[in-house]
Amino acid sequence: MKISLSKKVFAEFFGTLVLVLMGCGSAVLAGHNVGFLGIAFAFGLSVVAMAYTIGNISGCHLNPAITISMLSLGKISGKDALAYIVGQITGAISAAGILYTLAGGKPGYSLAANGLGQNGVAGGSPGGYSLLTGLIAEIVFTCIFLVVIHGVTSKVNKDKAAFGGLIIGFTLTLIHIVGIPLTGVSVNPARSIGPALFVGGAALSNLWVFILGPVIGGIAGGYVWRMLELC
Amino acid sequence: MKISLSKKVFAEFFGTLVLVLMGCGSAVLAGHNVGFLGIAFAFGLSVVAMAYTIGNISGCHLNPAITISMLSLGKISGKDALAYIVGQITGAISAAGILYTLAGGKPGYSLAANGLGQNGVAGGSPGGYSLLTGLIAEIVFTCIFLVVIHGVTSKVNKDKAAFGGLIIGFTLTLIHIVGIPLTGVSVNPARSIGPALFVGGAALSNLWVFILGPVIGGIAGGYVWRMLELC
Amino acid sequence: MKISLSKKVFAEFFGTLVLVLMGCGSAVLAGHNVGFLGIAFAFGLSVVAMAYTIGNISGCHLNPAITISMLSLGKISGKDALAYIVGQITGAISAAGILYTLAGGKPGYSLAANGLGQNGVAGGSPGGYSLLTGLIAEIVFTCIFLVVIHGVTSKVNKDKAAFGGLIIGFTLTLIHIVGIPLTGVSVNPARSIGPALFVGGAALSNLWVFILGPVIGGIAGGYVWRMLELC
Amino acid sequence: MKISLSKKVFAEFFGTLVLVLMGCGSAVLAGHNVGFLGIAFAFGLSVVAMAYTIGNISGCHLNPAITISMLSLGKISGKDALAYIVGQITGAISAAGILYTLAGGKPGYSLAANGLGQNGVAGGSPGGYSLLTGLIAEIVFTCIFLVVIHGVTSKVNKDKAAFGGLIIGFTLTLIHIVGIPLTGVSVNPARSIGPALFVGGAALSNLWVFILGPVIGGIAGGYVWRMLELC
Repeated sequence: MKISLSKKVFAEFFGTLVLVLMGCGSAVLAGHNVGFLGIAFAFGLSVVAMAYTIGNISGCHLNPAITISMLSLGKISGKDALAYIVGQITGAISAAGILYTLAGGKPGYSLAANGLGQNGVAGGSPGGYSLLTGLIAEIVFTCIFLVVIHGVTSKVNKDKAAFGGLIIGFTLTLIHIVGIPLTGVSVNPARSIGPALFVGGAALSNLWVFILGPVIGGIAGGYVWRMLELC
Repeated sequence: MKISLSKKVFAEFFGTLVLVLMGCGSAVLAGHNVGFLGIAFAFGLSVVAMAYTIGNISGCHLNPAITISMLSLGKISGKDALAYIVGQITGAISAAGILYTLAGGKPGYSLAANGLGQNGVAGGSPGGYSLLTGLIAEIVFTCIFLVVIHGVTSKVNKDKAAFGGLIIGFTLTLIHIVGIPLTGVSVNPARSIGPALFVGGAALSNLWVFILGPVIGGIAGGYVWRMLELC
Repeated sequence: MKISLSKKVFAEFFGTLVLVLMGCGSAVLAGHNVGFLGIAFAFGLSVVAMAYTIGNISGCHLNPAITISMLSLGKISGKDALAYIVGQITGAISAAGILYTLAGGKPGYSLAANGLGQNGVAGGSPGGYSLLTGLIAEIVFTCIFLVVIHGVTSKVNKDKAAFGGLIIGFTLTLIHIVGIPLTGVSVNPARSIGPALFVGGAALSNLWVFILGPVIGGIAGGYVWRMLELC
Repeated sequence: MKISLSKKVFAEFFGTLVLVLMGCGSAVLAGHNVGFLGIAFAFGLSVVAMAYTIGNISGCHLNPAITISMLSLGKISGKDALAYIVGQITGAISAAGILYTLAGGKPGYSLAANGLGQNGVAGGSPGGYSLLTGLIAEIVFTCIFLVVIHGVTSKVNKDKAAFGGLIIGFTLTLIHIVGIPLTGVSVNPARSIGPALFVGGAALSNLWVFILGPVIGGIAGGYVWRMLELC
């Protein structure tokens, strides 16, 4: 069955909206109750839920770093990739808007924006980690994430293909368990852009780190997987 | 094999009893020990357990919002839907009764009733959120829940159909991780009706929110999925 | 392939040893660190681990209440059931012995024995619940547990049979999330007998509750499932 | 398809790097936030992620105790086993180096090194357990781990083979839930060697315990499984 690009982009829009609303929402609305472990499960289970819902429609990227990594390995066309990314970013912005409304629209509220440097300000690192550490962490984590994504969806692992969405979601949970203290964990430019547009300030001025880091890491992860697959 | 309606309704009765007894029970009996994350897992794992037990008998709705969403898309007949809902609500009331007994029948005890507004009273919002925010949240969360339910059980995803119950349960966990501070999370009129009947007061006067919100959200979720499936 | 009874009994011995060592061990060695939620996952994941290891050897009962429920529905012979139960109880006692050694053999230490009544003593209820409440809870929880066990292993659900061990383990996690404050959760006479023999006192004098309750609940669960399957 | 040894060793290097970076990283970077339960999930989910990524390339051992247990049962050649172990240890050392950099290179920092004896020093036991208790625990836990690994990958369980990686990872989570207070949990010489080389002191002088214990336990686990399979 041929699936139209508009349907795929709508799926990416909706899926990214759910990921950002529920992932960031867990931090904004319930972070004090569920802790970093609860937030980590919220991000991961959002991906799990969407993977088994829209996985067969769009592939369930929900993340420009994934789409660009797929593009760099020739798994998606440039035109489709661009449309996917537009869908992802508009979905993330919509989610941030819904969350802003639910959270009471308090000005200056951080909306789980990713951050660096001094803690205690919107757009700060929960553990007070520096820009350089944050950038390295985003590159390393996104690289691992994309090795897993390319790996579990590879023909090498087609005997276990049905588990893919579960494994990819759990890997995002894993990355959040480890990385929230560093940057709040992006590994996904759309997830960072949505809240940053509403929060402004440091969240916006640091945004390039959460675009550049995941994109570099994502492309690197694709090549690491290719080495594993072919060497 | 043709399954009789009475057997399906008994399955819905039993499954909803387990969902409400164990989900609400986790909050009432162990909430101080396991936190909101533990409660979130209790609700989700109750659905997981029942989905793999009675899924092939009744479809394991356990929730009038799901049954009505199925009805709105023509996936169940009106007569069956009505019988399902009767089974679900009586199951939920039975569960609340068992829980009331186990918890010592302390008068005024909240039995994990859903709530809105001022915290600290039976039928209040854990985070003190307003009626309007609670209503929006219930609509949005139930909409997402039903997109996932229609999605994972769709022929589009039949290659991963066996995972359906796990994904739907984990999605309910996800919704609870994010939403307990707002309303305690209903997304299920039966789950709200059971405790409210025993608790009375604000839990009963706010009950319409936890019937209307999930039903609107559930129908909306069905149509969002249809758009994803067909557009 | 015909599997000998001695091999099955050895599997039940080993599996029950792992369940009691790791489940009770999580409470004794790490309970202050991982909380009741962590203990709940330890019991559930022990069953998950064993189900996929010895499930095809003995059926992975690890629990006399399961074996007796199987016997009451004619799914196992009386002779085999007796041998299974001997294997389970000796495995549980061995586990309690290992745990006693690891925990430093402190006299009076509770070894996660199940309990009732006053908290703060070995063999007390963590939430100070009465004998009657504890007995009702053990019957209800074991009944639900056995409905799930008979259900997921039934031919009705043979399309999802491979998930059985995961679902049964997660159901045990669910029961622990809800029920630890009441009795510490037995639903398994072997799991109660092991620690009680080392702890003595109230743990031993209350032991009949954790034999009778699970056995009644287990048999009831078998008949509830039969009603669901046949009505 | 014949897979070259160099590719397998690269997979073991990468997978062990991810296991040690994310497992130990969760303790070093986020341990105060996610607790021992979060650390337990990080170790387990690292194995889950890698099992579905490189499982069909190298078998995803990531652990010399697993490789030696496989060797003792003739499931891998001596030459391949040696190469695997070199890949695992170099991966673990690389991970410890990355973690040292991310954590700020603070001298004396423990990097989640395994430990024994007095708490509060690098290379101490979180619960202050003795060398003998730690050694027994490592043997027992690794034995259980290897019974599960041999079991779920056995032809006996080939109907559920696709679940193998999930079950093995969850078993590692289980072992960490129970065992972190004792030694921090090794059950894997490579996981212990990496941090110990950077931390030195007691972490290095106790290292033999975390090599000897897992190797003895791993070989024992292989023979226990063989008894279950054949008796």
